[in-house]
Amino acid sequence: MAHSAEIIAVGTEILLGNIANTNAQYLSCELSSLGISVYWHTVVGDNPERLRAALELARTRADIIITTGGLGPTYDDLTKQVICETFGQRLVLHEDILDGIRSFYREALHREMPLNNTQQAELPEGCTIFDNAVGTAPGCAFTSGGVSVLMLPGPPFEMETMVERCAIPYLKRLSDETIVSHDIMCFGLGESSVEELLHDRMVHMVNPSLATYAKPAEVRLRATAKAASSTEAEAMLAPVVEEVKSALGSYVYGVDVSGLPAQCLKLLREKNVTFATAESCTGGMIAAQFTSLPGASAVYRGGVVSYWTSVKHDVLGVDQGLLDEWGAVAEPTARAMAEGARRITGADLAVSVTGVAGPDCDERGNPVGLVFVGLATPDGTFCRKLQLGKRRRDRIRSVTCNHAFDMLRRYLTDLPVEEL
Amino acid sequence: MAHSAEIIAVGTEILLGNIANTNAQYLSCELSSLGISVYWHTVVGDNPERLRAALELARTRADIIITTGGLGPTYDDLTKQVICETFGQRLVLHEDILDGIRSFYREALHREMPLNNTQQAELPEGCTIFDNAVGTAPGCAFTSGGVSVLMLPGPPFEMETMVERCAIPYLKRLSDETIVSHDIMCFGLGESSVEELLHDRMVHMVNPSLATYAKPAEVRLRATAKAASSTEAEAMLAPVVEEVKSALGSYVYGVDVSGLPAQCLKLLREKNVTFATAESCTGGMIAAQFTSLPGASAVYRGGVVSYWTSVKHDVLGVDQGLLDEWGAVAEPTARAMAEGARRITGADLAVSVTGVAGPDCDERGNPVGLVFVGLATPDGTFCRKLQLGKRRRDRIRSVTCNHAFDMLRRYLTDLPVEEL
Repeated sequence: MAHSAEIIAVGTEILLGNIANTNAQYLSCELSSLGISVYWHTVVGDNPERLRAALELARTRADIIITTGGLGPTYDDLTKQVICETFGQRLVLHEDILDGIRSFYREALHREMPLNNTQQAELPEGCTIFDNAVGTAPGCAFTSGGVSVLMLPGPPFEMETMVERCAIPYLKRLSDETIVSHDIMCFGLGESSVEELLHDRMVHMVNPSLATYAKPAEVRLRATAKAASSTEAEAMLAPVVEEVKSALGSYVYGVDVSGLPAQCLKLLREKNVTFATAESCTGGMIAAQFTSLPGASAVYRGGVVSYWTSVKHDVLGVDQGLLDEWGAVAEPTARAMAEGARRITGADLAVSVTGVAGPDCDERGNPVGLVFVGLATPDGTFCRKLQLGKRRRDRIRSVTCNHAFDMLRRYLTDLPVEEL
Repeated sequence: MAHSAEIIAVGTEILLGNIANTNAQYLSCELSSLGISVYWHTVVGDNPERLRAALELARTRADIIITTGGLGPTYDDLTKQVICETFGQRLVLHEDILDGIRSFYREALHREMPLNNTQQAELPEGCTIFDNAVGTAPGCAFTSGGVSVLMLPGPPFEMETMVERCAIPYLKRLSDETIVSHDIMCFGLGESSVEELLHDRMVHMVNPSLATYAKPAEVRLRATAKAASSTEAEAMLAPVVEEVKSALGSYVYGVDVSGLPAQCLKLLREKNVTFATAESCTGGMIAAQFTSLPGASAVYRGGVVSYWTSVKHDVLGVDQGLLDEWGAVAEPTARAMAEGARRITGADLAVSVTGVAGPDCDERGNPVGLVFVGLATPDGTFCRKLQLGKRRRDRIRSVTCNHAFDMLRRYLTDLPVEEL
């Protein structure tokens, strides 16, 4: 039987806009890979009446309800009480869980448990307990009237750890259909252009299906098949993935990779090539994105954030005459920065960025969105000029990072580097 | 009359977990500052029946409904059609909007409008049109049976630009109560500790109210007052903010600042002091976070990402004997990195980070989560040793960044730098 789930996030902080509901995103990915469809996300505040209304509605339209949040030690954490009332369960104190929370405080936090953490040890009678390996609030699950209810903590790291260790095994025992997806990653084409190239295929396909998801300058195409087994689903997907790849050509940079940085890491490791960075307007973002990947240290030597022009000269060794003539934002400067980073770090390749991220144009009158991205290699230095227009500062910076990684992956796969 | 809003995000990509519903977060912040309460967020896929059900429910429990998404040019963009059916509105083609979309394609995108963009020019008859200054899909609003419905595009930048320019003025005409909030920002205390220090105050207060929101190693306390005017609300809040500040002492780093980097920027500008960075395990994150702030270039000179040990020596000038003796992850190395960054950039201050972000311990057997944060100043060099435990890589990196900024702000406000 195919299951469908509703995710209910409990927390006034989400309704006030203090945090985004990233837990629902994480859970949706995990549920999808288990073959469980998610048709609804709901967010409700720390308010018992509205939480009860949300639960009453969810039980009519989903057979799996997953809540996040409201399991904490503070007075407004009400999820367990309201769920037990709604589903007619009894809340009982588990002494062994209380002992566990006490030891967590002593051993991991080096202090005594505050008294109000006691309520975290109260759970529905007869439920399946989900241990919290990285925090204090345990989660749990029970089935009542054909509906399975899973309660998870709100802090994302605690929630994710509990999902991996406890909730996925629990859910696997409920599900018997398999969904397999492959993500075809594409840089340099807009969503409309991608869809025009693939339109017939996208409208008519149901299983496997094909959907597009746009990010700045990037499009992810997800091909999804439902089948009784993963082997069968894979066989349905293989020709679709090949067709999309051939239709979109060199704009496709990878399949089932998380993004351009991960694809570059893969290529650099395969070819045993190191790289370095020299960043001005991206201010360390290229380095930070790349080093967020485990294993980055095998191929990334380091870099320079040359925010002031003096640092371009003093640290990267960019010629002062060149800087005086061209200024900080210019193609010769981008080239010299990349070459400088390559020289001082001893890396095989180096990318560089200099541009105007805004909100104002620079002192030479260069417009917001004008960016030069350089790539120094043993085969010479390349440069791509971007005119991103007057967009938001963070958007200009993140699109620029993608262009730097795109040049790197094109160089590493023998594609033309400068044009898109 | 006090209004309440429901935010409905339309998009299968959210239910599949491809993106988080950050639009709801942004809208919630904006609505809250307009005195409009948000009691529900709902996410529904590109499915007309479920969207209709969501709208029918929302009109019973909110008097403002804001939808995001589903205004695009592709076949699964159905929001306008379903809303018009549900609220009995007629969809009509606006020739002037069609001309606008055509010019946007020609002038901003340098190509002809694809035919399927035509449906973006269809809007409910008699609605208020929200121009899209940065994309093609216009938004709109109408009121029907006492419920105001606002339709906004899904791409965050388009949605946010439209909210600022069109939706806020539209909503202001609906609202007549003012909510004022102040955020008291606190670093170095857990949420439970903060609440224990403030418990009585938090439970009993309704207007003004006080709520805590935890991020890794950071707690934000939001004091909120509702009143007829902002002057009245401010007068209610002033004593609350003062009491919290005095109860939490030097853990409070600012009021109404977005975070530690912004507070550091403010202090550095006030004191006309420049700084630089030398990062190993944070890999450029400190630089990237700081340079995401407009105006950062006034005080941030630049930095080095010394990911490989050779870069610590070759670029930062850390003594090879010191590196051989102590290794990359050690207090003397952190100190020398900060001093090196200060020297080569000419900055007044420099922060440095070296540590083990995981997932594995380093080649000398230093455990995951061991991090040294240095601060070189004209008054000598400081160092804080962190033992963050075996947490996730990105968590270790982001908490470390906060410690670096915390040391900087403590130095700039004459507080002890090394202890917390």
